[in-house]
Amino acid sequence: MRIFGIDPGSDRTGYGCIEAEGARHRIVLSGAIATSAHASFPEKLLAIHTGLSALLAECCPDCVAIENLFFATNARSALKLGHARGVAMLAAVEAGLPIAEYTPAEVKRAVVGYGRAEKQQVQQMVKLLLGLSALPTPHDAADALAVAICHSHGLVASARVSVPVDRGKAATSWRHYRPARP
Amino acid sequence: MRIFGIDPGSDRTGYGCIEAEGARHRIVLSGAIATSAHASFPEKLLAIHTGLSALLAECCPDCVAIENLFFATNARSALKLGHARGVAMLAAVEAGLPIAEYTPAEVKRAVVGYGRAEKQQVQQMVKLLLGLSALPTPHDAADALAVAICHSHGLVASARVSVPVDRGKAATSWRHYRPARP
Repeated sequence: MRIFGIDPGSDRTGYGCIEAEGARHRIVLSGAIATSAHASFPEKLLAIHTGLSALLAECCPDCVAIENLFFATNARSALKLGHARGVAMLAAVEAGLPIAEYTPAEVKRAVVGYGRAEKQQVQQMVKLLLGLSALPTPHDAADALAVAICHSHGLVASARVSVPVDRGKAATSWRHYRPARP
Repeated sequence: MRIFGIDPGSDRTGYGCIEAEGARHRIVLSGAIATSAHASFPEKLLAIHTGLSALLAECCPDCVAIENLFFATNARSALKLGHARGVAMLAAVEAGLPIAEYTPAEVKRAVVGYGRAEKQQVQQMVKLLLGLSALPTPHDAADALAVAICHSHGLVASARVSVPVDRGKAATSWRHYRPARP
């Protein structure tokens, strides 16, 4: 099973694709889409969406695993994150892929065995589980690989997995107002 | 000048397109994309993005005006709204359109003349300014028309207008890790 993990962020979106066979994992690729500090916010969203769409087409994963938002940050940055996460999810659903969502605590529990593990412990475990010679960088890439590994460890009972249906079914009604022609 | 207003929401996204010539306004169309209660969250995002992209292609506006998020609601619903707003902005930037953002207070001030006006007052003024025979429904459509009217009243000094640049320029670096071939 090929799993594509995403750690969304408006400044940097980490991604990591793994292949899981039972308890064995193999890295396919990982990295981060870093957006320019000079780019406008909509342009950043476009870069994230375009980048992820291209990567999903290249990797052909069976599903996408995405980190759930962490609610404890301030509202402003959480809202920005919501935008980035929205276009990331869109890229996945446009590719017709099921999407599994995990909270940071679920990811840590699945990878390290402890929901309040430190970021460094997660990175070390990602390195170990994937047999890498060095820590995955940037840390967003390691986080994305961690969420992919989390998904490979069997679906957590609390995971929200969205299986794609037919396009168009999701919109129930479009109400149009059009002025009558004179 | 043709302006396409958007009032984003994950359950219902209002839209309204107007044509402004000096102080005169004419409605082109308005409505709302209502997403099915049975649809998954990613499917709702897909429906919003697909719907808005089709409407922008149909209306050929000169710019898009979008309501800024209201920060006082609870964090959970604001985060959901962030996702919807992200895919709405993406549809606009993919269409190569400049995006202007206005807070609810700016919209009310521009349309009613008072930043703390009631929703009903805004709807009545939208009806009056566009010469409609009835109140625009649903209220999300009226809100979208209001933000379009707000933009037509000259760019508010505080408006954040993003002008599109070349695609691809927004992403500065892509760091890829790929395992060496054995």
